[in-house]
Amino acid sequence: MAESADATFAADRAAVQASLARFCDRYLTEVPAAAAAAMRYSLLGEGKRLRAILLLAAYRACGGHGDATDLAAAVEVVHAYSLIHDDLPCMDDDDMRRGRPTVHRVYGVSVAAAAGLAMVPLAARCAAGAGRGLGLPQDACGAILRELMRAAGAEGMIGGQLLDLAGEGLALSLDQLERIHRAKTGALLTASVRLGGRAAAAGDDVLEALGRYGAAVGLAFQIADDVLDVTSTTDELGKTAGRDLALQKSTYPALLGVDGALTRARALVADACGTLEQAGLLTPALERLARYTVSRRN
Amino acid sequence: MAESADATFAADRAAVQASLARFCDRYLTEVPAAAAAAMRYSLLGEGKRLRAILLLAAYRACGGHGDATDLAAAVEVVHAYSLIHDDLPCMDDDDMRRGRPTVHRVYGVSVAAAAGLAMVPLAARCAAGAGRGLGLPQDACGAILRELMRAAGAEGMIGGQLLDLAGEGLALSLDQLERIHRAKTGALLTASVRLGGRAAAAGDDVLEALGRYGAAVGLAFQIADDVLDVTSTTDELGKTAGRDLALQKSTYPALLGVDGALTRARALVADACGTLEQAGLLTPALERLARYTVSRRN
Repeated sequence: MAESADATFAADRAAVQASLARFCDRYLTEVPAAAAAAMRYSLLGEGKRLRAILLLAAYRACGGHGDATDLAAAVEVVHAYSLIHDDLPCMDDDDMRRGRPTVHRVYGVSVAAAAGLAMVPLAARCAAGAGRGLGLPQDACGAILRELMRAAGAEGMIGGQLLDLAGEGLALSLDQLERIHRAKTGALLTASVRLGGRAAAAGDDVLEALGRYGAAVGLAFQIADDVLDVTSTTDELGKTAGRDLALQKSTYPALLGVDGALTRARALVADACGTLEQAGLLTPALERLARYTVSRRN
Repeated sequence: MAESADATFAADRAAVQASLARFCDRYLTEVPAAAAAAMRYSLLGEGKRLRAILLLAAYRACGGHGDATDLAAAVEVVHAYSLIHDDLPCMDDDDMRRGRPTVHRVYGVSVAAAAGLAMVPLAARCAAGAGRGLGLPQDACGAILRELMRAAGAEGMIGGQLLDLAGEGLALSLDQLERIHRAKTGALLTASVRLGGRAAAAGDDVLEALGRYGAAVGLAFQIADDVLDVTSTTDELGKTAGRDLALQKSTYPALLGVDGALTRARALVADACGTLEQAGLLTPALERLARYTVSRRN
């Protein structure tokens, strides 16, 4: 079963990659050449595609049997925006991402900033097309779009980036740190899981349970990220290790120690799975994905 | 008639302002306080609301008799993004806008950048809600959203900003300059007019004519902007005059002289009106708006 789940994830990853390539072919033809190249570079790099895979797993857990790949890929377009901007010199100033030079290292800061900016309107178009492609009614398409844009916006990712930036060099409390992470990483991850439910026309109770799973998994993912930043090498991570310390960021390991942070992350994973089990939604794939957020090596 | 058109514009402006205030109340409650304040400051400043007013005039010209104000206000949300980012130190580095300090002068660069970024996902949510509020069928709602996001994205505004930045200090040809302006200012202005048509369920021929009007008016608007930058005072403009020269930007007056530039702008206005007349769509309001883009003092 574990093997078949892995095979499903690999197939999902390849399908999402193909969707992203189609988006590039369809939507980047009239984009100024430099921005188009930077967007393509960012979108088609090797990624875990965790958000997309979570969306597809949630979709199936809710009985969806169509093809939600384009919607899953639209979430990855939003995620690509956040990676480009997080790496910019005015943010984390990072040189490596997914084992390659970051977008601004290849295309310059202005082009990278513009390419990042352009991801959100691109994602909105992709998501609108995907909702229609799934044959969903108008209200569901609108709800999908609004949820994705909310996660991408000032309540979600952008607000989280801002809080993150404001917190650099300050000694944050656990609550403050959690608030940043819930917005910066958690919002899009939560939305991914809920959007899988929405794509399968799930009801409010199901969406609520999926959202709680997503929020817990998202926070566990971020705690694991903080831990990996101190315990892994740049080679293993595909991005620069030790960055948080260099930027004087408050992190979970700094506040709780590595073991304490991992204990907290594992408890969140257990909570996440428990929530879904109670709702009758815990598939092997969703359980495995939750555990993976903490057990991963990069 | 001219007076009644002015009264309509004033009423439209007030209604759009009210929509924007509602958007702030509805969508900014969970946004980090600094970003929410900056977004509110930007959205609720005194503006011409030309894009919104064009949308409403096009809507009525196409027989629309509902309330398209929320959709018109969604376009202004996208426009607000472009103003914030254009003014940033890394772009035009401007201190004044709409007669007040620019957003980054009040809230700092990071908050202003984030507030700008957050405008596009906010606009997508507003537009999705507005399409539904107009009772339009799903395809039309999707088309409205895609058109707005296209104008906001890498083919439109963001691509134009990038070309604009890349062109600073270079001697651009008229063709290159026009390409920048068509993307940077023209795309959203064109989309505004076409969205008015879409909101009224206009057919492809009508949208095509509205698009040509919008593109011509958009270019005329930008030429007039270039002219005002050299002929007006900061007080009259509500933003810093003489900025293009200071930034060594290629402009229409630099390439054609002030008189030559105004002649070109007036020819575009005549073209714009001619196109609509031929299509049977030229209302007094749309004619007056086209002329206003060149005759305005700020």
